[in-house]
Amino acid sequence: MVDKITIVGTGLIGGSFALALKAAGFTGEIFAYGRDESRLMMAKRLGVVDAWSVDAKEAVTGADVVFLSVPMGAMRAVLKQIAPYLAEQCIVTDAGSVKGCFVDDVRAVLPSLRYVVPGHPIAGTEKSGVEAAFPTLYNDRRVILTPLDETDVAAIDLVDQLWSMTGANVERMQVDHHDRVLAATSHLPHVLAFSLVDTLATMQEREEIFRYAAGGFRDFTRIASSDPVMWRDICSKNSQALLPVLDELREHLDRLHEAIAAQDEEALFDVMTRAKAARDEFCG
Amino acid sequence: MVDKITIVGTGLIGGSFALALKAAGFTGEIFAYGRDESRLMMAKRLGVVDAWSVDAKEAVTGADVVFLSVPMGAMRAVLKQIAPYLAEQCIVTDAGSVKGCFVDDVRAVLPSLRYVVPGHPIAGTEKSGVEAAFPTLYNDRRVILTPLDETDVAAIDLVDQLWSMTGANVERMQVDHHDRVLAATSHLPHVLAFSLVDTLATMQEREEIFRYAAGGFRDFTRIASSDPVMWRDICSKNSQALLPVLDELREHLDRLHEAIAAQDEEALFDVMTRAKAARDEFCG
Repeated sequence: MVDKITIVGTGLIGGSFALALKAAGFTGEIFAYGRDESRLMMAKRLGVVDAWSVDAKEAVTGADVVFLSVPMGAMRAVLKQIAPYLAEQCIVTDAGSVKGCFVDDVRAVLPSLRYVVPGHPIAGTEKSGVEAAFPTLYNDRRVILTPLDETDVAAIDLVDQLWSMTGANVERMQVDHHDRVLAATSHLPHVLAFSLVDTLATMQEREEIFRYAAGGFRDFTRIASSDPVMWRDICSKNSQALLPVLDELREHLDRLHEAIAAQDEEALFDVMTRAKAARDEFCG
Repeated sequence: MVDKITIVGTGLIGGSFALALKAAGFTGEIFAYGRDESRLMMAKRLGVVDAWSVDAKEAVTGADVVFLSVPMGAMRAVLKQIAPYLAEQCIVTDAGSVKGCFVDDVRAVLPSLRYVVPGHPIAGTEKSGVEAAFPTLYNDRRVILTPLDETDVAAIDLVDQLWSMTGANVERMQVDHHDRVLAATSHLPHVLAFSLVDTLATMQEREEIFRYAAGGFRDFTRIASSDPVMWRDICSKNSQALLPVLDELREHLDRLHEAIAAQDEEALFDVMTRAKAARDEFCG
């Protein structure tokens, strides 16, 4: 029975989690904790949360679950703020995009990881903030939980149930494996998109370049509109898994560069045919 | 007065050009020339063209305008096939993505460039083939004409009018300038998308990687579904303009790699903030 969930970081992710639970009939209290009163008031006014406080003690006292959706760089500080007031069996879960660093953070702050259930919803838009939250964000999206050996089974099941209420498909994975797969599928594309837009933006003909950007460019660079704080943290915190895939991509680009320079049409055709086949096969 | 337009390459681009002209009330004959009878029959059956032939003489005799929308690698061969039968004042225009190589091709084959109007519609989808053609493809899209000093002014105006009938906004640009701007805004993003998908597709965990690809990935890699022949030709034919921007991107990625390796959060934040600001400013 969950009587109180405290959400720390009521933006797109935390806010949509709250809205989805309410839409699914969750009747417990959803409480918001944060530093910025105006953001918390906004969350209350929009009906995303039932109550809020900037006081950690008030916010987490009596909470059965604490849901952390703050930028990963802020995670450890937040954990330190709430740790003294957590009930012994209070479940702590999160929505961070890198799981290794979350585990490091809780290990550094909490006495035990027994009730800690690391999680990562593979959902989001390039928007951020509670105004962007909506109850169907997690519908049919994957949520990956990365429990540790010592994690309480009932705690995992409860977090699994909450996510299932939001419409998400919950899966479980090892921490390291999660971070490697996400580095390739999510973090690397974001790095490329940020890098491409920044490259073009620093060119002399930037005005004209963006003016003539074709339709595909808009889709291609949408993810470069994502929150810089979140992505700074992801790149920094998942550097170990991200660097090897970035290296592979760079080698790939080097080979493509050679093929273009040599006007090696066979090599170019091979790369493009393979890429198209893979894209069509997997993304249909 | 245009009585007959001959389209060479009745795929997405040429087919949509024909459909748009018909939708705008063009009453002349639209004639298709090509090698593949089944494709030409399909174009006729779909109502995209009025008549077709695999015979160059029949196809271009009496044509006031020849519209070339074949892969750029096939351009010179096609020009050689039709050249003997072109009327002296027949306007030759094209839809190729690189203008420098088209100018080289016509210079090598035709006796004069007076009635040659190089053009490039910045439109398309990742689909190809006449079945994908639709009459509103060029609505509100940019079409860039790159006439030369010797080009007949009336010929330019006529091509301009035809494109305007399709709903496109017609602009004019120098050949070299066009190829540089498009290298940055279109060709470079495609190279990156092909490269990213191919990199992931050659990884051991490819099945899983694509399975966990988040929503943004689908948008980001859509352009990797584009026609490999077309893009092989673009990369090869525009190598001179493409290589410098690819170099800039690679340097940029190298710097980002360093920042990730050093967990230099300030540098990472700077890149992402600049990219987000540029994307939001220019793509709204």
